[in-house]
Amino acid sequence: MSDMGVPLGEDDASASGEDRLIARYFRPLAKHPGAFALLDDAAAITPPPGCDIVLKTDSIIGGIHFLPRDPPQLIGKKALRVNLSDLAAKAARPIGFLLALALPEEIGDEWLAPFAQGLAADAELFGCPLFGGDTDRTTGPIAITIAATGAVPHDKMLRRFGAQPGDRVVVTGTVGDAALGLLLRRDAEAARWGLGQGQRDELEARYLLPQPRCAIADLLGRYASAAMDVSDGLVGDLTKLCRVSGVTADIEVGRVPLSQPARVALARDPALIETVLTGGDDYEVLASVPRANMEALRDGAAARGIPVTEIGLVLTGSAGPRVLDQSGRPLAFARPTFSHF
Amino acid sequence: MSDMGVPLGEDDASASGEDRLIARYFRPLAKHPGAFALLDDAAAITPPPGCDIVLKTDSIIGGIHFLPRDPPQLIGKKALRVNLSDLAAKAARPIGFLLALALPEEIGDEWLAPFAQGLAADAELFGCPLFGGDTDRTTGPIAITIAATGAVPHDKMLRRFGAQPGDRVVVTGTVGDAALGLLLRRDAEAARWGLGQGQRDELEARYLLPQPRCAIADLLGRYASAAMDVSDGLVGDLTKLCRVSGVTADIEVGRVPLSQPARVALARDPALIETVLTGGDDYEVLASVPRANMEALRDGAAARGIPVTEIGLVLTGSAGPRVLDQSGRPLAFARPTFSHF
Repeated sequence: MSDMGVPLGEDDASASGEDRLIARYFRPLAKHPGAFALLDDAAAITPPPGCDIVLKTDSIIGGIHFLPRDPPQLIGKKALRVNLSDLAAKAARPIGFLLALALPEEIGDEWLAPFAQGLAADAELFGCPLFGGDTDRTTGPIAITIAATGAVPHDKMLRRFGAQPGDRVVVTGTVGDAALGLLLRRDAEAARWGLGQGQRDELEARYLLPQPRCAIADLLGRYASAAMDVSDGLVGDLTKLCRVSGVTADIEVGRVPLSQPARVALARDPALIETVLTGGDDYEVLASVPRANMEALRDGAAARGIPVTEIGLVLTGSAGPRVLDQSGRPLAFARPTFSHF
Repeated sequence: MSDMGVPLGEDDASASGEDRLIARYFRPLAKHPGAFALLDDAAAITPPPGCDIVLKTDSIIGGIHFLPRDPPQLIGKKALRVNLSDLAAKAARPIGFLLALALPEEIGDEWLAPFAQGLAADAELFGCPLFGGDTDRTTGPIAITIAATGAVPHDKMLRRFGAQPGDRVVVTGTVGDAALGLLLRRDAEAARWGLGQGQRDELEARYLLPQPRCAIADLLGRYASAAMDVSDGLVGDLTKLCRVSGVTADIEVGRVPLSQPARVALARDPALIETVLTGGDDYEVLASVPRANMEALRDGAAARGIPVTEIGLVLTGSAGPRVLDQSGRPLAFARPTFSHF
């Protein structure tokens, strides 16, 4: 392995190939003073006064979470965004991130340059600079592991547990687009959905580029009783949230927010509802919100351009949550949660 | 991907295979209160008052940093220890760690159980509990990425830069054992070194199981002017430390601390000195220490069972550091630093 602590510039003849690579592509991202411009191999962060530090790691791996032909810019953005999505759901604002890169032999500048460019753009956009990291060769696919660090007022990390009977179940944005987008990319038969190119692009873009809800992290902290980001499918993740909270929930399929292309596809093939509700990669925030806080959360989020939709109700009980159809009958799913295992 | 945030116990029929795996093997390691027993997917750490948070990530990958046949217990320990070694060299005490695991399809309980056992033993030994993590399937080799978090008094992270002319160059423990151990494991001709089985085992153990110098992290913080852990070879890492400090150094090959098996091997094959001085995986601390602090550091470390040896002197200059032989002549190396690139 090689630490991302490199003594010099990319033009130093004594530097190894790895050090030059780090200096060229990653030093520009290390804008946090505690990263010491990657002259050191560790970062030192002075915690914001009165704040807890929130920590989360997620990897994305070639062939599993992205396709090898995907644009490297978007892979760089996705690697950071899946972690930022977690911080947002925990009511934390980003401070910075560590990056561990495992690269196959054939990966060179033509991949690294746009990858680092995408990562840099999002590090800037979300105010989340690089702290440092590690680069390695691997005989396997590209693997990108980010450990994101955030800050939240002391003891105010929004937990996954804490939902109370009577709370509303809400979700941000729209659900299922990324799963449909992935199907479109993998399955030629998806042509039967009758989508135009613009609609196909919209769904695929949702798979390629998650939209972490950092802009409302503080509102979630103020108004929600529990939250998590939806990465493994709405139904499966709601099941997790309910179980750790010791509650259950009913959600109504007719209230689940869908994008326009998803509605078109569902109209043609209603069985896709299972993909929409159980597919992965949404990276929206699922939360429980006390009834009294609903309006403040919805209005506050709307003012920041992020729709928050009420989709159901938290209930007393220990059975798994139910998804009710238009007639109030519970739907059954073969595979309620997305898992690579 | 799947967050290491799992609702329930391993015996819950509704849990996915991945969740059962996490509950069974990793929840016992999540002893930090901020890890919420892995009921959440992110951790919240209240920073120790007056402290900075030190962050570092390192991966180890099958076929690159360990051999697939290595005992899983030791792989678990090594994954954590290579990160603890960095924290020690930064004068930081461990607080906890995030774990991202990428596992090939064929990895099951028979590997995971001892892996988690080794990791748990070291998490306990070094006071560094699991905060949370992420598990993924990969088509490549096993990859283990740990992001370690430590604490250090505000603004007192020991930097890689800061060495001053006149400072002594010191190193903990012995150098070169792990590189010789790796050669022994890979090269049948190493039999010519004339080592007994016990001596071979000692060198191989140093490759398999680094000894992070956490026990003297506070002393390093008090007495050293710059430090880093030696992971890519003594000469290459000293070169980095000197360059970022804007100095150079002379070290004497005769003062470099060697284990008894390394001395035996070198007596038989003097050319091995290059492996000793430039091979990777030492995980000792290399530091510069003002002359006035030498005795206090050496005595304090000795009292904690860790040898600290003076091997040379920091000098004014911008050329790379020199390794002088017994006659004061500089040695030349084909490849001063170890790199997988």
